[in-house]
Amino acid sequence: MKRIDQVKGTFDQNKEKRRTAPSASTVKRLPRYHRYLARLLSEGTLRISSTALAERMHVTASQIRQDLAVFGDFGQQGYGYNVRYLHHKISRILGLTAGHRVVFIGMGDAARALLSSPVFVRGDLQAAAVFGGDAVGEMPAYSLADMERELPAIGATIAVVSLSAEAAQACLPTLAACGIRGVLNYTHTHLTPPDETMKIQNVYLDEPCLLLSYQVGASEENED
Amino acid sequence: MKRIDQVKGTFDQNKEKRRTAPSASTVKRLPRYHRYLARLLSEGTLRISSTALAERMHVTASQIRQDLAVFGDFGQQGYGYNVRYLHHKISRILGLTAGHRVVFIGMGDAARALLSSPVFVRGDLQAAAVFGGDAVGEMPAYSLADMERELPAIGATIAVVSLSAEAAQACLPTLAACGIRGVLNYTHTHLTPPDETMKIQNVYLDEPCLLLSYQVGASEENED
Repeated sequence: MKRIDQVKGTFDQNKEKRRTAPSASTVKRLPRYHRYLARLLSEGTLRISSTALAERMHVTASQIRQDLAVFGDFGQQGYGYNVRYLHHKISRILGLTAGHRVVFIGMGDAARALLSSPVFVRGDLQAAAVFGGDAVGEMPAYSLADMERELPAIGATIAVVSLSAEAAQACLPTLAACGIRGVLNYTHTHLTPPDETMKIQNVYLDEPCLLLSYQVGASEENED
Repeated sequence: MKRIDQVKGTFDQNKEKRRTAPSASTVKRLPRYHRYLARLLSEGTLRISSTALAERMHVTASQIRQDLAVFGDFGQQGYGYNVRYLHHKISRILGLTAGHRVVFIGMGDAARALLSSPVFVRGDLQAAAVFGGDAVGEMPAYSLADMERELPAIGATIAVVSLSAEAAQACLPTLAACGIRGVLNYTHTHLTPPDETMKIQNVYLDEPCLLLSYQVGASEENED
């Protein structure tokens, strides 16, 4: 028995090690797991096999087992996944239980659309204030010039930026100094973080449209 | 010499074969190549080595050579890539030279944001009409009930859908019957194509926000 425990100990250490650095592709799939699990919960499904989850998500069951194993053992042999537990765990991994507050720097159409997406409607992330844009809902609105004075007290960690590319790049050091650690970039231009601790997600809204154009073109070619 | 030609012939056949089915990950990178090449062109850069292009795009040079080789030989040994030629070729591969017309079914904030993205501003894709939503710019606006009558004559191949999930799913057969081959889905819910020839891009605007939440959470954990 002792040897088995020792071996198990080694496995757990490896698991712990892997848990600190999941692959980029596994991380990319987490929002998708979160979305499907939230839907299962809302449908009242409390237990699901990796095979059934895989079928719904259009991936392989082994892919799911592999992805989720990186973050710990969620499934039980012969039982499948406990949906509520798995949803909670993935919410936690995604940082949604930390109650991140989000500020909007500029308020463009994309930012407005984001505000009516499930993550904000459900309150997984909290819209806290607008700087340099029109007020939306109950959020207070400030001018860009008030950022240094007002932003630190708001306690936001994420900023959604929809200014011009130049103005957006110029305000990043101020955002970093005021506690912003993550930036969602809606400027259509690559932004460079002012330091290593700031994370940036550059969003190109027209990319899926270009892919559609490719796919439609490709199927027309096949018909020739 | 003959043998070399024969060998070359074999290579070309393989190339042709691969050209019909590039990998999904290569295709996903094409909009990015298109974006960077458009920027290089606007800066007046007419020639670039794969190494320099790789540096700008934050990928490896061998990745670039491999991606572009799938669609044909764009680079010349010792010269690099001709930016204008490569931009034109990728535009063509992406179907942008086909002059796709795009209709908007419903007009939400996301669709409005898309209309001000580079692909529409530059005219790579043409916004043609709105059904069931407010008119934007010079596009004519029709009611949803007029779709069957008006849509075929517009000659659109792509539709951007921002209705409720149920209404969106219900209108897909009509869209298909009226010539729509690709659908950009802004409903926050997975849509299923009514037949194999219709392509759907399901867009989840909050996904990059969840990834930021993950990244910010992860860096906080590292500090503990």
